[in-house]
Amino acid sequence: MGGCQTFRLDRFALEGGEQLRDVKIAFETYGELNARGDNAILVCHALTGDAQAGVWWGSLIGPGKTLDTDRYYVICSNVLGGCAGSTGPRSCDPFPLITIRDMVHAQRRLVESIGVTSLHAVIGGSMGGLQAIEWAVTFPSFVKRCIPIATSCQLSALAIAYNHVMRTAIKSDGVSGLALARKIGMITYRSFDLFQERFGRASKRPEAPLAERVFQIESYLEHMGQKLIGRFDANSYLCLLKAMDLHDVGRDRGGIEAALDRIESDVLWIGINTDHLYPAQEQRDWANRIAERGKRVIYREIESPFGHDAFLIEGEQMSRFVGEFLS
Amino acid sequence: MGGCQTFRLDRFALEGGEQLRDVKIAFETYGELNARGDNAILVCHALTGDAQAGVWWGSLIGPGKTLDTDRYYVICSNVLGGCAGSTGPRSCDPFPLITIRDMVHAQRRLVESIGVTSLHAVIGGSMGGLQAIEWAVTFPSFVKRCIPIATSCQLSALAIAYNHVMRTAIKSDGVSGLALARKIGMITYRSFDLFQERFGRASKRPEAPLAERVFQIESYLEHMGQKLIGRFDANSYLCLLKAMDLHDVGRDRGGIEAALDRIESDVLWIGINTDHLYPAQEQRDWANRIAERGKRVIYREIESPFGHDAFLIEGEQMSRFVGEFLS
Repeated sequence: MGGCQTFRLDRFALEGGEQLRDVKIAFETYGELNARGDNAILVCHALTGDAQAGVWWGSLIGPGKTLDTDRYYVICSNVLGGCAGSTGPRSCDPFPLITIRDMVHAQRRLVESIGVTSLHAVIGGSMGGLQAIEWAVTFPSFVKRCIPIATSCQLSALAIAYNHVMRTAIKSDGVSGLALARKIGMITYRSFDLFQERFGRASKRPEAPLAERVFQIESYLEHMGQKLIGRFDANSYLCLLKAMDLHDVGRDRGGIEAALDRIESDVLWIGINTDHLYPAQEQRDWANRIAERGKRVIYREIESPFGHDAFLIEGEQMSRFVGEFLS
Repeated sequence: MGGCQTFRLDRFALEGGEQLRDVKIAFETYGELNARGDNAILVCHALTGDAQAGVWWGSLIGPGKTLDTDRYYVICSNVLGGCAGSTGPRSCDPFPLITIRDMVHAQRRLVESIGVTSLHAVIGGSMGGLQAIEWAVTFPSFVKRCIPIATSCQLSALAIAYNHVMRTAIKSDGVSGLALARKIGMITYRSFDLFQERFGRASKRPEAPLAERVFQIESYLEHMGQKLIGRFDANSYLCLLKAMDLHDVGRDRGGIEAALDRIESDVLWIGINTDHLYPAQEQRDWANRIAERGKRVIYREIESPFGHDAFLIEGEQMSRFVGEFLS
């Protein structure tokens, strides 16, 4: 139950044409795989996440919870290109370009190696959602249910734009640049109302001269930036941002519609009403486009002041939507 | 008609307590001041704007246009702290902290020096709107009409957050940091739909290997960053961001409500339905709070995919709302 394991591959061919050797994929599992190997739920993590889904999605995963580890075998792996146990830019330099599709292919090798014959469900938010939908398109018959959350079938121009400025910061300034990238990210992950309610115009020393005024929202961002550089690798961040930019389930498949035609799973698409990065309207549009291909898709929307990050925070709504869908 | 002039002040006392000497304020005027000196409209520019309102708001200003230079005497000055002719960080080092209130006091000295006895209207969007509302609160009887657009009576936590990351970029990287700040700014000034429609996932060489793929949204941001560093001073940018952060019409006046009580002018508050930085809901709230103080206020909302920048772009809607209000 939990505890980090490592899956190894001698060689792994990447979509970009290069080959990786001695690939490690760090993963955790919760619960037991059944005899038919078909009760597995694959959890895909977001940009700065890791394999410890039982920790960062503790509201959802556990005995008796929505992803019930008494019934399901829950698997989460650190993505290829990550820096929490899997092969990534920390492992070899230069590290080649990878794609979301590569991450999914590596996960497929991993889950097969541990006896999974089909996935009861694949679920993920943000970059995890890019993987979830890529799974349903790449391996249609292997995936029974797909739950993409606050995500996209092909990354939007706005999301590419934010990734671009975060990349610019890191490329020009290394570790400090990573802290800046994290600050930028944090702003886009939350909402106007949340910041307003939580920080407003509060400052540490309101009586200080104007020139020394530091607002609490600034201290918060500073803290979040510093916290990330203690646990994340700048080159891994760059690598994952690029993989997100390139995410397009329609690539080399005749476009989006042809790609969506491949889906065989039931789909629960979840949006967030205050998401700035993957706006609710975009989420509804993706669900509609999948429905228009004659697929079984349900759309649900989280209502939250937390913005994009709501999928990590609004446990009750997440549990309700996912619980209804799985039962 | 047009043409840059310079107003000079020997000494100017700043809100932060320091004194500036030999202050220059660059300004342009359009039309003729009438004998009573009461047909002047003061236009306040946004962060990277300048005194040439006849150029950047050409859709609004001119003979027969909404700000009709056959009737009104239109004045626009480069703000104190700016870098387009007025005294700012380029003029003296170190340059002291300035506030929006300082900008407004300098403008007051300027307009009085050229014979203006009261302002028929003061109008501005974004940082220009911070000045407009500050004008109505600081000099109530001098301002007959006030038109704040996509702006605030005290800067929000979200806007401070974006200013903070732009400042971080500039402080760590000088001119390149200014280019990065501009890129960040540009993303927040526009909207998801606009970027999606205009750039989508287009790239310069779609046939290039994945590793060399550069999206057009990236080239656009790069271009906007480079363009700004050719015309703007990094220290001036820092100075103006700080002034925006500190903007609070309630400071040293017993709070927002007491400050709003001072207003004597008619107010037309304009919001933009897709504004990420100064959301429409915030704009409606400001208009409501002013109305609750028993003031005459009208709220209008621009509908546009252009986001925050719509006030510079949607000439037809701007003309309609402002025209109705002035007549």
